[in-house]
Amino acid sequence: MAQPTELTRIGLAGLAVMGQNLALNIADKGFPISVYNRTTSKVDETVERAKQEGNLPLYGFHDPKAFVESIQKPRVIIMLVKAGAPVDQTIKTLSVFLEKGDCIIDGGNEWYENTERREKEVAELGLLYLGMGVSGGEEGARRGPSMMPGGSFEAYKHIEDILLKVAAQVPDSGPCVTYIGKGGSGNFVKMIHNGIEYGDMQLIAEAYDVLKSVGKLSNEELHSAFSEWNKGELLSFLIEITADIFGIKDDKGDGYLVDKVLDKTGMKGTGKWTVQQAAELSVAAPTIEASLDARFLSGLKEERVEAAKIFKSGGLGDILTGEPVDKKKLVDDVRKALYAAKICSYAQGMNLIRAKSAEQGWDLKLGELARIWKGGCIIRAIFLDRIKQAYDRNPNLANLLVDPEFAKEIIDRQTSWRRVVCLAVNSGISIPGMSASLAYFDTYRRESLPANLVQAQRDYFGAHTYERIDIEGSYHTEWFKLAKLSKT
Amino acid sequence: MAQPTELTRIGLAGLAVMGQNLALNIADKGFPISVYNRTTSKVDETVERAKQEGNLPLYGFHDPKAFVESIQKPRVIIMLVKAGAPVDQTIKTLSVFLEKGDCIIDGGNEWYENTERREKEVAELGLLYLGMGVSGGEEGARRGPSMMPGGSFEAYKHIEDILLKVAAQVPDSGPCVTYIGKGGSGNFVKMIHNGIEYGDMQLIAEAYDVLKSVGKLSNEELHSAFSEWNKGELLSFLIEITADIFGIKDDKGDGYLVDKVLDKTGMKGTGKWTVQQAAELSVAAPTIEASLDARFLSGLKEERVEAAKIFKSGGLGDILTGEPVDKKKLVDDVRKALYAAKICSYAQGMNLIRAKSAEQGWDLKLGELARIWKGGCIIRAIFLDRIKQAYDRNPNLANLLVDPEFAKEIIDRQTSWRRVVCLAVNSGISIPGMSASLAYFDTYRRESLPANLVQAQRDYFGAHTYERIDIEGSYHTEWFKLAKLSKT
Repeated sequence: MAQPTELTRIGLAGLAVMGQNLALNIADKGFPISVYNRTTSKVDETVERAKQEGNLPLYGFHDPKAFVESIQKPRVIIMLVKAGAPVDQTIKTLSVFLEKGDCIIDGGNEWYENTERREKEVAELGLLYLGMGVSGGEEGARRGPSMMPGGSFEAYKHIEDILLKVAAQVPDSGPCVTYIGKGGSGNFVKMIHNGIEYGDMQLIAEAYDVLKSVGKLSNEELHSAFSEWNKGELLSFLIEITADIFGIKDDKGDGYLVDKVLDKTGMKGTGKWTVQQAAELSVAAPTIEASLDARFLSGLKEERVEAAKIFKSGGLGDILTGEPVDKKKLVDDVRKALYAAKICSYAQGMNLIRAKSAEQGWDLKLGELARIWKGGCIIRAIFLDRIKQAYDRNPNLANLLVDPEFAKEIIDRQTSWRRVVCLAVNSGISIPGMSASLAYFDTYRRESLPANLVQAQRDYFGAHTYERIDIEGSYHTEWFKLAKLSKT
Repeated sequence: MAQPTELTRIGLAGLAVMGQNLALNIADKGFPISVYNRTTSKVDETVERAKQEGNLPLYGFHDPKAFVESIQKPRVIIMLVKAGAPVDQTIKTLSVFLEKGDCIIDGGNEWYENTERREKEVAELGLLYLGMGVSGGEEGARRGPSMMPGGSFEAYKHIEDILLKVAAQVPDSGPCVTYIGKGGSGNFVKMIHNGIEYGDMQLIAEAYDVLKSVGKLSNEELHSAFSEWNKGELLSFLIEITADIFGIKDDKGDGYLVDKVLDKTGMKGTGKWTVQQAAELSVAAPTIEASLDARFLSGLKEERVEAAKIFKSGGLGDILTGEPVDKKKLVDDVRKALYAAKICSYAQGMNLIRAKSAEQGWDLKLGELARIWKGGCIIRAIFLDRIKQAYDRNPNLANLLVDPEFAKEIIDRQTSWRRVVCLAVNSGISIPGMSASLAYFDTYRRESLPANLVQAQRDYFGAHTYERIDIEGSYHTEWFKLAKLSKT
């Protein structure tokens, strides 16, 4: 293999698809890069790609020592290996050859506390550490991802110039990267990004389901509806690829490919973590929870097939009402419902970040996060600019729902939203994300909830006490005795 | 203080209300008991109560050594102290004086892994350990709780005779206690019990909200509706106390007390754990999640008051439709919706237990758990007998929803259920638990979900691959390239 004539600027270890593409992207931006992988064939593959994609300044190494020593000091090495033990293993392999002041960057979807542990561990060797969420999939990694580096600010400064060039570039908004904050904040923010992504995908799936199952739209009609949506307020990567998907024919048979895909959704863990963190932080995240539950239930295909039989024989078909709907009006209603539900989902995600930031003292800037998600990442959307503006207007906004612009948008759409939820309910089509979002909205905008009853119950059976609406203080009532008294 | 003339049968440490009441219950059943508390005034208080409640054989100790030595060997000591560090502290204090073969029982709401850690730790001292969930609140502890002991079977055998007498007794069903299983299974089952309790309370609160806010029922009418409900399929402790609550007048002013209780619900952690475990175990638990989220949102009283102002000024009042409803019909519909939603909530809880049992090899018997919840505990209800019967019919039942009896009950109620959800949606009243339950039902009984689209999206941007409905295997499609091709 060709060796660099001088030291390279940066190294990258872990050459699965994401790693290869990010390395090629860096080289493509003019930064000479050394690459390494334990399975050496991946190294050769990457070198070959670099050659084919325009003789990019990328140099492959089969030996970790030679790899590390080929990089200029202070060395910066990005790891793109599986989260968990492989990261620890890679750090172990590389750190033997690293020197004081060198930096290690984990670009995987790592649990933020693992990053914080490693940052401390490598600090004992004099090394700097960053946990950097990278979003954009294969394509994003190669052309320009959104990156969320958190940890050592000094390490960030060493590669800021690279990251600014490698990141997706959004006109009038800049590169989709910023120093997120201390500790594991970069991983945490990426985790919430993924939770929001779960929500977006579920809401889109529900829109698809209502349009297809109730509205009887064909794939062609779905393709044109989503293509149309992608010109307006919903303009986003996920809507775009959804439109694309409806247009793709099956290469193994008749009809469209999407109809042949098994309805079982996989997952990798970040959605799960998001839901667990929501519970931990006492932040309601019903839309994201609904999207995770939908994935779990999708996995029970065999059970669902059995259940469908049982309830069909009991008179409950797949679709309960066969009433014809006005397709055009339905498409319009569903678009509005999807947008309103999306606002709720993002409100939950942003509030999760804010709560964690407060807990950890990370001082995260919500508007800036919305900015770096505008391009490169999976949830990139024109919508994110509205979120940025909302936080620009009021950095201490309690909830996106009460931003004047979003509030107005929701009010304008709530009738459609309620219509879609009721249509689905009456059709027997579940849209857990859209209805959970609506319940979230209707709960949040409610001055008085029936929680008074729950608190009275808790005081009744557990003496947990309650507050009053009219007098300060904490009270306990002998409900049982009073009830007995009133019965006699 | 009076000292026992011979060794007592059992000891209890931790004399807050639950501890006092359980100790008095044990003494009341004829088992001489020694009691201890670090704050000694609680000891004297308990001794005084034992005297007043009929010279019960209860003996107080201010000194841990004397306390331990007053108990016959092998000694059994129940701790009822706060979960976490206080439990470790109490074990430390007592274990100094305990001898090989003695047993420690934690009766608190402890995280199951803490129990497993302690079981191992005290085993090194030759001591046996049980983590025993106790439900029933103050009243249950005194008159007969439901108890869920898990851990050392040998320890269970040492006190089985006491537990069988102290537990709530249900005619034709026996005492509400059984050996749950190994390790932390007793704590885990109690945790899920509490998660189900969260769900029940939320569903009842939603029924209350719809009846009060949409149906305009007065507290008197609510009292009589819930009293009536408590004679039928919904007969349960929580429905009973809810009826009671609506009948209690404010002792500090005019009107009813429930209307003066602040709508902010507290919580202690078991609901949170349940939701986190659901995510961990890949089990959908949307009803329980909705109940936890409702508590979180209830806590944001100040934010809600602000949001209500903003949306009211935007034209969205508390109640959106003022259309009059038929009260009698509404009460009937809401009762059916509540019952159907309750089935979904319990289905989630039972499946959580089954999943954990499989993970841990606990071999838990779901029907037996339903049996011991029939009396004593907060979720006690005639309904639990139906669950027991369902698992008697089929111990491997995949989901309560597909038990023939429950399936029939749901089919009979689904029209009312959908009507209530739509009424709430159109009224702007959130009923997150009932609508999440309905979405759960409609998802579970669906042969084909829109998860095919989600899986196609994942393969599009992340090459996560997909399965097909018609051909075995795992596939990846170059969606992006195909889409680009079709556009040109």
